[in-house]
Amino acid sequence: MKKQKVSSAVIRRLPRYYRHLTDLSQAGVVRISSSALGKSMNLTASQIRQDLSCFGEFGQQGYGYNVESLRDEVAEILGMSRSHTIVILGVGNLGRALIENFSFANGGFELTAAFDVAPELIGTQISGIQVYSIAELDQYLQDHPTSVGVLTVPQSAAAAMSERLIRGGVKGIWNFTNSDLHVENSGSGVIVENVHFADSLLTLSYLISEEP
Amino acid sequence: MKKQKVSSAVIRRLPRYYRHLTDLSQAGVVRISSSALGKSMNLTASQIRQDLSCFGEFGQQGYGYNVESLRDEVAEILGMSRSHTIVILGVGNLGRALIENFSFANGGFELTAAFDVAPELIGTQISGIQVYSIAELDQYLQDHPTSVGVLTVPQSAAAAMSERLIRGGVKGIWNFTNSDLHVENSGSGVIVENVHFADSLLTLSYLISEEP
Repeated sequence: MKKQKVSSAVIRRLPRYYRHLTDLSQAGVVRISSSALGKSMNLTASQIRQDLSCFGEFGQQGYGYNVESLRDEVAEILGMSRSHTIVILGVGNLGRALIENFSFANGGFELTAAFDVAPELIGTQISGIQVYSIAELDQYLQDHPTSVGVLTVPQSAAAAMSERLIRGGVKGIWNFTNSDLHVENSGSGVIVENVHFADSLLTLSYLISEEP
Repeated sequence: MKKQKVSSAVIRRLPRYYRHLTDLSQAGVVRISSSALGKSMNLTASQIRQDLSCFGEFGQQGYGYNVESLRDEVAEILGMSRSHTIVILGVGNLGRALIENFSFANGGFELTAAFDVAPELIGTQISGIQVYSIAELDQYLQDHPTSVGVLTVPQSAAAAMSERLIRGGVKGIWNFTNSDLHVENSGSGVIVENVHFADSLLTLSYLISEEP
């Protein structure tokens, strides 16, 4: 499949497509029209067709989309079949929440290790994941090429840890530290995906303040 | 200040404006041109001017923006001065991470209570926040009008809990359950803001898979 330059809005919708198609598939739906798919996702039929046309030819005029094969295509586009590896830096409450409750495997990621500075955590396992000393990070990344580093460290450690991840050869950083990492300008080509709790809550604040 | 209909992309950028302006203000910057502000935010000067024009007249041709007063205006637009109240449903690792580490006050929110089903948690305090039984939720909301409910419960409890929050009169739900709540169609006018870990990681998967 050839990829053209795809807008970030379309990219951000792809995981939603994947989720909705998974739900439809589990509900036993075999095919769906673009207007029905759009309705369930609060998009117009033409937006659906336009989004998917960025990635090739899907569906058939008057027939709609085959749910399962479109889901597989979207998974492929999302890179879910690549079996990326991922490590977590920072095993506080949030890091622990991700290790214990988040399904990395569902997204095609294998969680391979966790790192922390707390002596009482180092050497233990959490849900089967080994916790190493952060001092071992550089050696670990050298021995185990890793696709993504998750930053659940305190904000004060974010910049230093992201530099070590980049030197260690990761392709992406999943950043929960509520700080901007400014790695775009490092020339490393490393992608940062931010989960910005504060921005999200402020957006909600705006939207509820608007209500009468 | 009059609000016109503002696009969701602009709304989502407002918290970033607030953050950048706060950083600039703390760094002692008194005024800034739209092009310099744009550079620090990876936006064009004209996009900055266009975004802010949605909310009124800011800045002055050839002078730029006064950092502190623009920051205050953005805070006002975001509803940060409204002192919203917020409760957390679900005191697992993620709920605990928010209670212990997230600054609700910075966003103008007062965290007033937490709710859980675990007998060993009920009646305790976490960082000064009382944990109540989820059985007490309806009465609590009746006695303490609450702006927002945070959902950090398991996915299986998400729908039932969101219904109780809506019946309890919240204006917004901050949803961490990785499930779509479908409350838009309930006619309640309640706003749902999703923090979708899975979607975020899949976006990162796409972006790193694209890299050579």
